[in-house]
Amino acid sequence: MDGALMAAEIAEQPQVLARILDEGRAEIARVGSAIRAYNPRFVLFVARGTSDHAALYAKYLVETQLGLGAGLVSPSTMTVYDAHPRLQDVLFIAVSQSGGSPDLLEPLSRARAGGALTVAVTNAPDSSLARAAAFHLDVRAGPERAVAATKTFTAELLTLFLLVKSIGGRQDTEADALPRQAEEIIARREMAQLAVRYRFAEQLVTTSRGYNYATAREAALKLMETSYLVAHAFSGADLLHGPMAMIDRGFPVIAIVPEAPGGAALASVVEKLQELGADILVVGDPAIAARARVGLPLVGLGAEALTPILTILPLQQLAWSLARERGGDPDQPRGLKKVTETW
Amino acid sequence: MDGALMAAEIAEQPQVLARILDEGRAEIARVGSAIRAYNPRFVLFVARGTSDHAALYAKYLVETQLGLGAGLVSPSTMTVYDAHPRLQDVLFIAVSQSGGSPDLLEPLSRARAGGALTVAVTNAPDSSLARAAAFHLDVRAGPERAVAATKTFTAELLTLFLLVKSIGGRQDTEADALPRQAEEIIARREMAQLAVRYRFAEQLVTTSRGYNYATAREAALKLMETSYLVAHAFSGADLLHGPMAMIDRGFPVIAIVPEAPGGAALASVVEKLQELGADILVVGDPAIAARARVGLPLVGLGAEALTPILTILPLQQLAWSLARERGGDPDQPRGLKKVTETW
Repeated sequence: MDGALMAAEIAEQPQVLARILDEGRAEIARVGSAIRAYNPRFVLFVARGTSDHAALYAKYLVETQLGLGAGLVSPSTMTVYDAHPRLQDVLFIAVSQSGGSPDLLEPLSRARAGGALTVAVTNAPDSSLARAAAFHLDVRAGPERAVAATKTFTAELLTLFLLVKSIGGRQDTEADALPRQAEEIIARREMAQLAVRYRFAEQLVTTSRGYNYATAREAALKLMETSYLVAHAFSGADLLHGPMAMIDRGFPVIAIVPEAPGGAALASVVEKLQELGADILVVGDPAIAARARVGLPLVGLGAEALTPILTILPLQQLAWSLARERGGDPDQPRGLKKVTETW
Repeated sequence: MDGALMAAEIAEQPQVLARILDEGRAEIARVGSAIRAYNPRFVLFVARGTSDHAALYAKYLVETQLGLGAGLVSPSTMTVYDAHPRLQDVLFIAVSQSGGSPDLLEPLSRARAGGALTVAVTNAPDSSLARAAAFHLDVRAGPERAVAATKTFTAELLTLFLLVKSIGGRQDTEADALPRQAEEIIARREMAQLAVRYRFAEQLVTTSRGYNYATAREAALKLMETSYLVAHAFSGADLLHGPMAMIDRGFPVIAIVPEAPGGAALASVVEKLQELGADILVVGDPAIAARARVGLPLVGLGAEALTPILTILPLQQLAWSLARERGGDPDQPRGLKKVTETW
C-alpha cells in the first residue's frame, strides 16, 4: 500500500512515547543534572526541517519553564560567513533525526570550541552529530523509513520536554498519560474523513499561538511534503500583521486551539478569520471547534506544554490521507530524500 | 492615485538613508558605546511583522559581526505564559515602526526588570516603547502613512547595521554609498514591467540565504499584504528540507541571490528549482540572473551585509505594481490597520 511506512510510523507513536518514558528517563535525568551543574545563562538550538519545529517548541519551554533567553541559530552564519561565536555559559542543543546534516555538525563543533556545553538530540546514536557533542540523547524512535518524519518529531518533543524539566530540577509525572492519550487520538478516524474536503485546495494556512505554534509549523510542512499543498504557518499574532490581507471568503485555515491559555489567546484571531469568511478547521477547544466550519474537539489533554505532542497526531493523519486522496505516495514525496544534506 | 502614499514612501528611501547617515550616526555611536561598555554576552530581539524581518537581519549581524549568540523572543512566553526571564548581561532590542504594540512593550519591560540593557529602535520617539527602554534610537524615516511599511524597514536595517558596527567598535564607511545606490535601483523601471507576469499567479515562493533571508521574508509579506498573493518565504536550506516537494513545473519563485557568499550558497538551490521547471525570477548576481526565466541583475552592491537594504527595493516596487495591476489599492490593504495591537 502506498503510504504503508508512514501509516505504521504514525501508529507507532504511543509505543515510542512509552519507550522514552520507560527507558529514556534515566539518561535524560543524568544529562539534565550535568546541564544544571553547568548552570547555563542562555540556550541555543540548531536544527532543520521537522527537527527545527521541535527546537522551536523547546525554545518556548526554555523561555517559560527556565526563565532563560534562548535562540535558534542560523547555520549559515558559520557555514557561509565563517563566524566563530564566543559561547561560554551557553547550552547549545542540536536536534536532528539522522544526525547526518553537515550544516548542523559545523555549528555544533564551533559552539563547542567557543565554550558552549553541547548536546545532540537525535534518533541516531552512531551519527557524527551524536559523537561531536559533549552529551547525546537518543530519542529512541527506532528506524524511520518514511521520508516525512512523524514519530521522530513527537519523540524529539517529549525528549526535549523531559530534558528541560530535568534542567529545572523538577520531577515530572505529567507526561505519564501521553502514550494512552496518543493512542486514543490516533484511534479516532475523523481526519481520514476530513481529508477529502481538501482534495482540490491549492493553498492553506495553519495557525496557532505559543507552544502549538510549533504544531502549526510542522502540520504545514507535512502537508507541503506529502500532499504538495502550499501550506503556510503563522503565529496568530503574526497573521494579524499583514498576511491577514490575503485571507478571503473560503480560504482554508487550520487553527490549533488547545483548551488552555495559548488557545484562549488565539480565540480573537479565529473570530476575525470567521468574519472574513475563511473556511476554518479548529483542532482543540470543543467550544471554539463547535463554532468553526469543521471541528476536531480534543478534551482532557492535560498541561498545555505537553499538548503539541498530541495535537500534531490528527494533522499527521490528515497529511497522510490527503496525499493518498490526491493520488500521491506519502512514503515517497517527489524530489525529497530522507537525509537532506545542506550546508 | 491609488497607492500614491506607498509610491512616495518607496521613492523617499534614498533621502531617509542619507538622513540616518548624516544626522543619526552620532546618536547611534553614543548608544553603541554604552552597549560596548555594558559588554553583553547575548542579544535578544523582539519585533513583529516587517520589523521582525529587520530583527532577523540584525540577528545575523550579531552572530557574524559580534560573534555572540542571539535570539528572537516569542512575546507569548511573557504575555500568555507569564514568564519573567533572568537576563543579566543580555542586550535586549525591541524593533517597531510605531512603538505602539502592547506585545512588544510587556516583553521589553520584563527584560529590563530581569537585568537586560534595553534599546528601542522605532520611528516614534514619543511612543510608549521608546520611553520604556533604557535607550531609544529614532530611525528618522518621517511619518509613514501607507499601511505596508517600506521606508521604515530600510531605515531599521541601516540603523541596526550601524548600531552593530558601533558595538563592535568599528567605524563604518561602507554604508556611505547606500543613498546613491538606492536611488539608482529605484530609478530602474524593470519591476513595474515584470509585475504583469504575476497578474494571475495565486501563490509564490521567495527564497534566499544568509543576510537576504530577511529580504525574502519581507518581500513575501509585501506581496501578501498589498497583492493578496499567497507568498511563502524559505531559506534556501529549509526549502530543500521538505517544501521543495510542492514545487512543480511553472511554480513561481523569486530568488534573492547577491553576488556574494550568501548568493553563492543559494546557487545549487536555484539549479534544483530550475530542474523542477520552476518559473524563477532572480534578483542579484548577473550570471545567475542570465540563466533564470526572468532576471533583475544588480551589480556593485558592495558589502553583502548591506545588500538587504538594496535588494528589497525592487521587490517593494513589484508588490506595489502588482497590487495596482490586480485592481487593489496598495495604500489600503483590506483588513489591515497601520498599528496592529496584538498581545
